[in-house]
Amino acid sequence: MIVIMKPHAQMRDISAVITRIEDLGYRVHLSEGEERSIIGIIGNGRPIEASQFGRMAGVERAVRVSSPYKLAGRNFHPENTTFKVGDLTFGQDLAIIAGPCAVESRSHIIETAWAIKEAGGHMLQGGAYKPRTSPYAFQGLGKQGLRYLSQAAEETGLPIVTEVVEPELVGLVAEHADVLILGSRSMNNYALLRAVGRANRPCILKRGRSSTIEEWLLAAEYILSHGNTRVMLCERGVAGFSQETHNTFDISAIPLAKQYSHLPVLVDPSNGTGKWDLVSPVAKGAVAAGADGVMLNVHLSPDEAMCDGGQSLKPERFAQLVRDMTAIFSVTTQQR
Amino acid sequence: MIVIMKPHAQMRDISAVITRIEDLGYRVHLSEGEERSIIGIIGNGRPIEASQFGRMAGVERAVRVSSPYKLAGRNFHPENTTFKVGDLTFGQDLAIIAGPCAVESRSHIIETAWAIKEAGGHMLQGGAYKPRTSPYAFQGLGKQGLRYLSQAAEETGLPIVTEVVEPELVGLVAEHADVLILGSRSMNNYALLRAVGRANRPCILKRGRSSTIEEWLLAAEYILSHGNTRVMLCERGVAGFSQETHNTFDISAIPLAKQYSHLPVLVDPSNGTGKWDLVSPVAKGAVAAGADGVMLNVHLSPDEAMCDGGQSLKPERFAQLVRDMTAIFSVTTQQR
Amino acid sequence: MIVIMKPHAQMRDISAVITRIEDLGYRVHLSEGEERSIIGIIGNGRPIEASQFGRMAGVERAVRVSSPYKLAGRNFHPENTTFKVGDLTFGQDLAIIAGPCAVESRSHIIETAWAIKEAGGHMLQGGAYKPRTSPYAFQGLGKQGLRYLSQAAEETGLPIVTEVVEPELVGLVAEHADVLILGSRSMNNYALLRAVGRANRPCILKRGRSSTIEEWLLAAEYILSHGNTRVMLCERGVAGFSQETHNTFDISAIPLAKQYSHLPVLVDPSNGTGKWDLVSPVAKGAVAAGADGVMLNVHLSPDEAMCDGGQSLKPERFAQLVRDMTAIFSVTTQQR
Amino acid sequence: MIVIMKPHAQMRDISAVITRIEDLGYRVHLSEGEERSIIGIIGNGRPIEASQFGRMAGVERAVRVSSPYKLAGRNFHPENTTFKVGDLTFGQDLAIIAGPCAVESRSHIIETAWAIKEAGGHMLQGGAYKPRTSPYAFQGLGKQGLRYLSQAAEETGLPIVTEVVEPELVGLVAEHADVLILGSRSMNNYALLRAVGRANRPCILKRGRSSTIEEWLLAAEYILSHGNTRVMLCERGVAGFSQETHNTFDISAIPLAKQYSHLPVLVDPSNGTGKWDLVSPVAKGAVAAGADGVMLNVHLSPDEAMCDGGQSLKPERFAQLVRDMTAIFSVTTQQR
Repeated sequence: MIVIMKPHAQMRDISAVITRIEDLGYRVHLSEGEERSIIGIIGNGRPIEASQFGRMAGVERAVRVSSPYKLAGRNFHPENTTFKVGDLTFGQDLAIIAGPCAVESRSHIIETAWAIKEAGGHMLQGGAYKPRTSPYAFQGLGKQGLRYLSQAAEETGLPIVTEVVEPELVGLVAEHADVLILGSRSMNNYALLRAVGRANRPCILKRGRSSTIEEWLLAAEYILSHGNTRVMLCERGVAGFSQETHNTFDISAIPLAKQYSHLPVLVDPSNGTGKWDLVSPVAKGAVAAGADGVMLNVHLSPDEAMCDGGQSLKPERFAQLVRDMTAIFSVTTQQR
Repeated sequence: MIVIMKPHAQMRDISAVITRIEDLGYRVHLSEGEERSIIGIIGNGRPIEASQFGRMAGVERAVRVSSPYKLAGRNFHPENTTFKVGDLTFGQDLAIIAGPCAVESRSHIIETAWAIKEAGGHMLQGGAYKPRTSPYAFQGLGKQGLRYLSQAAEETGLPIVTEVVEPELVGLVAEHADVLILGSRSMNNYALLRAVGRANRPCILKRGRSSTIEEWLLAAEYILSHGNTRVMLCERGVAGFSQETHNTFDISAIPLAKQYSHLPVLVDPSNGTGKWDLVSPVAKGAVAAGADGVMLNVHLSPDEAMCDGGQSLKPERFAQLVRDMTAIFSVTTQQR
Repeated sequence: MIVIMKPHAQMRDISAVITRIEDLGYRVHLSEGEERSIIGIIGNGRPIEASQFGRMAGVERAVRVSSPYKLAGRNFHPENTTFKVGDLTFGQDLAIIAGPCAVESRSHIIETAWAIKEAGGHMLQGGAYKPRTSPYAFQGLGKQGLRYLSQAAEETGLPIVTEVVEPELVGLVAEHADVLILGSRSMNNYALLRAVGRANRPCILKRGRSSTIEEWLLAAEYILSHGNTRVMLCERGVAGFSQETHNTFDISAIPLAKQYSHLPVLVDPSNGTGKWDLVSPVAKGAVAAGADGVMLNVHLSPDEAMCDGGQSLKPERFAQLVRDMTAIFSVTTQQR
Repeated sequence: MIVIMKPHAQMRDISAVITRIEDLGYRVHLSEGEERSIIGIIGNGRPIEASQFGRMAGVERAVRVSSPYKLAGRNFHPENTTFKVGDLTFGQDLAIIAGPCAVESRSHIIETAWAIKEAGGHMLQGGAYKPRTSPYAFQGLGKQGLRYLSQAAEETGLPIVTEVVEPELVGLVAEHADVLILGSRSMNNYALLRAVGRANRPCILKRGRSSTIEEWLLAAEYILSHGNTRVMLCERGVAGFSQETHNTFDISAIPLAKQYSHLPVLVDPSNGTGKWDLVSPVAKGAVAAGADGVMLNVHLSPDEAMCDGGQSLKPERFAQLVRDMTAIFSVTTQQR
């Protein structure tokens, strides 16, 4: 951290800042300019916040210099993280994960899984536990939904990707799922992050609706620091002023996250746009921008979906999109 | 809900929409205009979403008409909710709740409690369990922090207001706290909302950083529908493009929430601005705009605070603010 | 427009709304439901606003149904607009426009133009009049800059694309430019929109930083309704909470604008991200999402640029990007 | 500016940065830490941008230290700016400016002016030239509207406050107006800012919908640096994700602007909320937070207003609000 003093700050103000820094267990590097002094904080001491210095007399502001995440960042882990789930290597192959917002019935999820497999999808997603804005909305089939997912996996061979919403459910869900989803609303649910950090399953960490890249990587740091190294990031749209789309899909987050972090970066254009007719263009755009994978809502008859029908693709449109994304991925990876 | 058909939609499209509505257990009111038809959905059926209709052939869009919350809304509960905690009646008196971001030590919290009481504060807040962006930041003293809070309550007589971050902790925290806080990051933690809904303690539900008023009231609905009727709302700043303040304090949310809901509406200008020198102006503004109470960070020596020192007031400034807010409250309540 | 009455609104309130509508020159279609009445507004009368009805007694809210733009919309103009500038057909070919933020000198712009041509760019952009946030920043070379642009055009044969910032300058700029830019800050400068609407030059209308798609198309409507039909839209990033990028590039705006409007849709990933190392991924993403063209800042030595060096590509990187975008465009247009 | 080098940046990278700084006419202050070096830029040279350094080899980032505005800032002008218009001293008295969105007719504006005067308003606002989102919306009465405003001023003695939308109209509008408004959409219309900077009339500079405080003060700097020192700032709501209010009224901008600048700070809660029933709470809140004045839409019969009826107060409600704001102002100024 660097503490920038006000022009012509008094000597006693500068001393007070230095004393404070040393009390916290750091050393100081004082740079006295003509107009103002700048104080660098060096070494390792107790956790500090810029705001602690910001209000001291004579201080203009404090600026953090090093990134606050270690395990998620590229500094100490320059190589891309890759790992296998089934036949697919995340972080290397283009991962295509598809399925309905919610598991609706045994036959429905099995039929959907076959359709996804035929269309070229690699994994099946479907919600058994659904975090819903309204207490009166369909909350998922729960345990029964997990069983149906396992049956779909058995029949089709597709790995299962599903959301976990409570710390106590992590064990149960991990029995049925190959990959866990930490949803956007759970990005700051630290008890859940810790529980997933202790689970033996890869996980996809969706970005919160109003999270900066740094906050997102710090949430990943919670999981990583509890031992789970198979973490993926997923951009799924952020809060914006637009009233056309519930979320604003932040395409720049893909290259930014890949710059700062070695973790694979997926995208969810279904939630990221909320409108089925925007899903294909945005999915293709995300792949061209460097995404390592795409999560999509696919439904056999979206008009009758129990949730999020408006953002779901029908299988035939999904099949076309798989072809397009694959072609784009192969064009762009030639230059990588 | 109203389904607005496209100009000159075909008769079979209109029929398909009607059939769908009836299948869901509703009745239909068809209004055929010159240019377009509009279909009203009447009665009670299975939960429906606007997006289900939005993609049907011939449909321009579907518009929801009734509000999705029942218990939190004014429609069926026109009178303001009021209830007592200690001597103070929330929803009627101006509630002033103050304290440090985190409980730091026994002596510190007791000394702070006395300072707050002397300055005219009504309740003591202080975090024992702290949800922190970084896994490396101070996470609170936990159970020990709760005990210190209880001791501060015994000594000073101030009721205790503190945050609960996990469903399993609700019981423990409720033993020590008079009022529970559901923090901004937990607004969509539905397991936690349900647990607090079953607790026998009033609670303060902070608005999520990117939550609309409706989403906020639906989160309240989770608590209310599980039996806890002593719910308060708290505006604490939302995501905005400004880089001056971490959050944008949304003053309009105060009159809006009071219009739509009968629940008391508090504000948290400390988190809502993140800067101590904005806290007093915004707190006074919020009271003038109709807030039922104010939550503030007060610290004996903010420069040394273990968290959020930058947004904490010193006791003497807090005392002045209490006088100002009280004067403004008395001016504005004369006209209410 | 549809006026939705409150549940059980009184008959005299409904009558008052009907009278108001008829006074404004419209007819009424009343639909009386069990719980509430809905009043459709039919025909052509004086301009009306939803807010006029919103505050009448018994009214819940008014919802606009038809889109407020006619010339920019697809309803009355379903075919894509295409037109030629030089050899390139906008709306059909992928247009690549590149150049420095500002014209810096005669030799510099000519050398840059050659570099862009060699790399495969189709047109040269460069600012002669620069709208700058600070009055103390470099404001462009003005008339002299225009002359240098013309000389670069003569030498290289590249058409010129440059910004116009004041109504009085439209004539002068149009003498030197093949395509006019209406910058993001000018999107609501109606005098300027009208002046460009009377000019005989194609123009690129950049989206304002906080403009909805509808406001953007209404700005286009200003130009179109003054006679200029060669209008292009350009997404260049909107206000967002992120502090990583000055703007949030809104990729969904590309398919949305193309859905609602027949006008070509370009993108400006240089301003849209503000960081050179995000430009290539976002540019490729935009092409994959359906953009008709890309505007880019290219500078021979970005470190020494007089403005926006931080978001400028060097020629060799630009050449690589041209190849990538061309490959992606050819993949995606096969499926269009 | 401070240039922060990456940890262990190479000596030749540091040298290159130093050379660049010196080439731009500045001196350098090099501070070599253990882990990284920091380079301070000292003195006065050519305008520089942080982005110029951000992409040089070995540079982590560049941080601006001094504020880019001089005339608008408190550094060189610590005292509040105050000036008289009629009997009122802006920056000292609470200024209450009211009137319809648009001048609609001679009799209407005169009658409105009397109502405002009786209710305790100090000045009359009304639009003769209206910047409208749609080319088909009512654009104001123009010159005729200005004449009606002058007649209202003659009859009632109220000073006139009205918007100017084009540089060429500044002279004409200034003949009829005591105070000019620069609307939110014009905040980046630099030709207009310059023209108002040369006018001999106080002006109110509304904040752009997506402008930071710094960009707002730099727009003021354009006016101030052209000779007009009687500039006021006006917060009127910014872009936010909320769909309840078109704008998010940023109450923190009031104390922030007053901290950074000596100029009076007004607010416009009518545009800032867009809903008449939020205007009074937000207006009172703004006064309590330190606003120097309030601009309001008042209309004799808002349901029939030619624009913005939905956000206009009726005279009797306005009169009550004047009483409330006056009481709050007197409470809060006692402590200032």
